[in-house]
Amino acid sequence: MHPIVIVGTGLAGFNTVKEFRKLDKETPIVMLTADDGRNYSKPMLSAGFSKGKTADDLCMATPEKVAEQLNVDVRTGVHVAGIDATNKRVLLPDDHLDYSKLVLALGADTWTPPLEGDAVGEVFSVNDLMDYGKFRAAVEGKKTVTILGGGLIGCEFANDLSNGGFKVSLVEPMGRCLPLLLPEQASEAVGRGLADLGVQFHFGPLAKAVHHGDNGQLVTELSDGSQLESDVVLSAIGLRPRISLAKEAGLDTNRGILTDKSLRTSAEHIYALGDCAEVQGHVLPYVLPLMASARALAKTLAGETTEVSYGVMPVTIKTPACPVVVCPAAEGSEGAWEVEAEGNTVQALFRSKDGSLLGYALTGEAVKEKMKLNKELPAIMP
Amino acid sequence: MHPIVIVGTGLAGFNTVKEFRKLDKETPIVMLTADDGRNYSKPMLSAGFSKGKTADDLCMATPEKVAEQLNVDVRTGVHVAGIDATNKRVLLPDDHLDYSKLVLALGADTWTPPLEGDAVGEVFSVNDLMDYGKFRAAVEGKKTVTILGGGLIGCEFANDLSNGGFKVSLVEPMGRCLPLLLPEQASEAVGRGLADLGVQFHFGPLAKAVHHGDNGQLVTELSDGSQLESDVVLSAIGLRPRISLAKEAGLDTNRGILTDKSLRTSAEHIYALGDCAEVQGHVLPYVLPLMASARALAKTLAGETTEVSYGVMPVTIKTPACPVVVCPAAEGSEGAWEVEAEGNTVQALFRSKDGSLLGYALTGEAVKEKMKLNKELPAIMP
Repeated sequence: MHPIVIVGTGLAGFNTVKEFRKLDKETPIVMLTADDGRNYSKPMLSAGFSKGKTADDLCMATPEKVAEQLNVDVRTGVHVAGIDATNKRVLLPDDHLDYSKLVLALGADTWTPPLEGDAVGEVFSVNDLMDYGKFRAAVEGKKTVTILGGGLIGCEFANDLSNGGFKVSLVEPMGRCLPLLLPEQASEAVGRGLADLGVQFHFGPLAKAVHHGDNGQLVTELSDGSQLESDVVLSAIGLRPRISLAKEAGLDTNRGILTDKSLRTSAEHIYALGDCAEVQGHVLPYVLPLMASARALAKTLAGETTEVSYGVMPVTIKTPACPVVVCPAAEGSEGAWEVEAEGNTVQALFRSKDGSLLGYALTGEAVKEKMKLNKELPAIMP
Repeated sequence: MHPIVIVGTGLAGFNTVKEFRKLDKETPIVMLTADDGRNYSKPMLSAGFSKGKTADDLCMATPEKVAEQLNVDVRTGVHVAGIDATNKRVLLPDDHLDYSKLVLALGADTWTPPLEGDAVGEVFSVNDLMDYGKFRAAVEGKKTVTILGGGLIGCEFANDLSNGGFKVSLVEPMGRCLPLLLPEQASEAVGRGLADLGVQFHFGPLAKAVHHGDNGQLVTELSDGSQLESDVVLSAIGLRPRISLAKEAGLDTNRGILTDKSLRTSAEHIYALGDCAEVQGHVLPYVLPLMASARALAKTLAGETTEVSYGVMPVTIKTPACPVVVCPAAEGSEGAWEVEAEGNTVQALFRSKDGSLLGYALTGEAVKEKMKLNKELPAIMP
C-alpha cells in the first residue's frame, strides 16, 4: 500500500501525524518539506528576542528525532513540483512519489509588495525557523530595524525587537495598528503601548523602495517622499495561503485551498489544513483552528471521516506593551462596535442589530473579560 | 551536444531564439513554457478591447508554427521544478533535461495583495495571452469593471475597457494615476483624460476584500469602508520579477535575477533577460530594453560574448484619452521637475542641479517633443 504523504512539516503537518499515530502506529507516512524539517513552535518566532532564544533554542526536534518519535519518513529540502491527482502521485524534481492519501499542509507565504531599489534582496520576512535564524544573524550587533506592516506579525515583532533593545520604526499605510482586526480606539491603545517602548510609527504612506545608503545603512523610501534609515528592514505586511500547487493540479481554490468540513479538497484522497486551507469559507491562520483540524483529519485518515468544528477561538496577540485578545466577528457580519475605553484598557464589543455579541477586541486590563465574553459568542463553525 | 534550453516563450524567449537563428541555424534548442506557448505581442493585451481583438486574434503563431519557423523544440504546459546548475540540468516533474546553456526568460508575476472575501478566486489579472482569453470570456456581455491599481497596466486597461463600452471604477491608494512614473500635474492630466471617458477614480484607500454580492455582482470593499459593485474585478497592482527558480538554485537575486551586462547570471552557462532580469541594477519591464537584450544575448549564445547597452528608452503608455510618453530618470538620481502645463498637455522635465536633463514625462500634445528631448538625455546603460 502506498504511504500517506504529507506535504509540509510545520505545525499543521506535524500535528496531523502526531494525532494520527495515536490512532494508527503502522500505516507508512512520508513527510515532505522544502525547508530543514526542524520542529518548532511557530508563535515563538515573534517572542524570541524578549526571551533571548536563538533559532537552535527554538528547535524542539530535529527531523531525525521526529522520524523516530512518530515512525515517519521525513524528507527535507524537497521541492514538490506538482500533483498528479488522477494517478495519485506527487511529482518531484526528476522523481515521483505515489500516495494512498495526500495531505497539503503547505502553510502560507509572506507577501511583500514589489519594492524598488538595490537592496530589495536584503529585506527580511520571518515565516519559519530558517527565516528566523537568518534574521537573528542579520540583526546581531545591530541597533535599528524598520518594520513594514503594522498588522499582527508587525506589532508582535515591534514589541519583541524593542524588548531586545532595538530601535524600531514601523510603516503602516492603513493609518493605525492592527487595522483589520481592531476598532480605532483599540488600535490607538496598542499604538500608545508600543510607542512607550520607543517604537516610531509612520502611518499613511506605503513603502516604495529600499536602497543601500552611503553609510552602510539601508534607506527605506516611503510614498510620501520621506526616508527611513536602519540597519535592517523586516517585511511583515501579510500572509497569503500557498495555493499554486493545488491550483495547478486543478483543485478548487479561492483565498485558500477549498475544503469541506472534513478537510477534503475537490480532488479525491487529497486533504488540506492549516494556513493554506479555506475550510468552508474560513481562512484562519491561527493555532487553535489548526489543532482542531489536525485532530479531526487524523481520525478521517484513520478511516473514521470526521468533520472539524471551530468553537469560539480568541486570538491572543503577543504585544505585552499593551496585551490584546481579539475574537473577530465572522466576515461580512453586520453590526456595530460598542467601545468602553480608559487609557490603554479598551473593551470593544461587536454587536448585531438585535444586540447579540458577534465578536470582541480587548486591550490592557480588559483582556481579563475574555472567558466571560467567550460564553456569549457563537461558534465560528459549529 | 546538449541543447540550449530557454525557459519562457514570451517576448524575451521568442526574440532570443529568433535573433539566435539569424546567426546559427543548427544548434538544437528546447523552449519550455508553463502556458500554451502561443506567440503574441504583449503590449496588445491592454489594447484589445479598443481594437475588438479576441485572444485568438492576438495569437501570431501557434507553438507548432514557432517550432517550424525557428527549428526549435517547443514544450508547453511544462512546470520547471528546479535547476541543477552544477550538473547543468533542468529538473522537471518526474523528469530532467540537460543543457549546454540555459536562458531564463521567465517574465514577471502579477502581484495581488492578500485580499479577504469569498470571491478572491474570481479576481482577474492579465499578464499573458491565456489570462487575456479568460478575462475576455468573463467580461463578455457584462457592463462594469473594477480595476485595482492606477499604474501603467491599470490606466491602459481603464482606457481600453472604456473604449470597449465598459463602465470602469479604478482604485489607487497612492492618490493619483501612474504615481511612480509621473509628477503630480502629469498624473492629473491622465486622470482628467480617463475621467472624460467615464472612469470613476477612488484615490487613497486600499482594496481589502472582494465578496459575492446578493445580486450576483462582486463587491470590492475598500479600507475607508466604501464598497464598489461591479460585474468583474481586475487586479493590476504590480509586477514582480519571477526569481524563485533562480533563488532556489543558488543564483544571486535582488528584485530580479542579477546579471552582468552580458546577461550572465552568477552561475556559469545560465543567462537571464527580460522582465525577470536585473541587469546591472536595472529592472526594465519594457519592450525596448528586452529587444536590445535579445539581440545581444543571441550573439553571446552564438559564441561572441556581447554586452547589452540601453540607450534612451522612452516608454509610451497606451492611454489615448491622454497620450503619455515617459523617460524615467535613473533610480535615486537627484534633481527636480520643471513643469509646463496647459490643460492635459504637460511637459515635465527632470533636471539635475546643474541643469542637465535626466528624464521627462510628456502628456497630451507635449508627446511630440519626445524626439528632440531624447537627444539631450543620457543613455540608461551605455
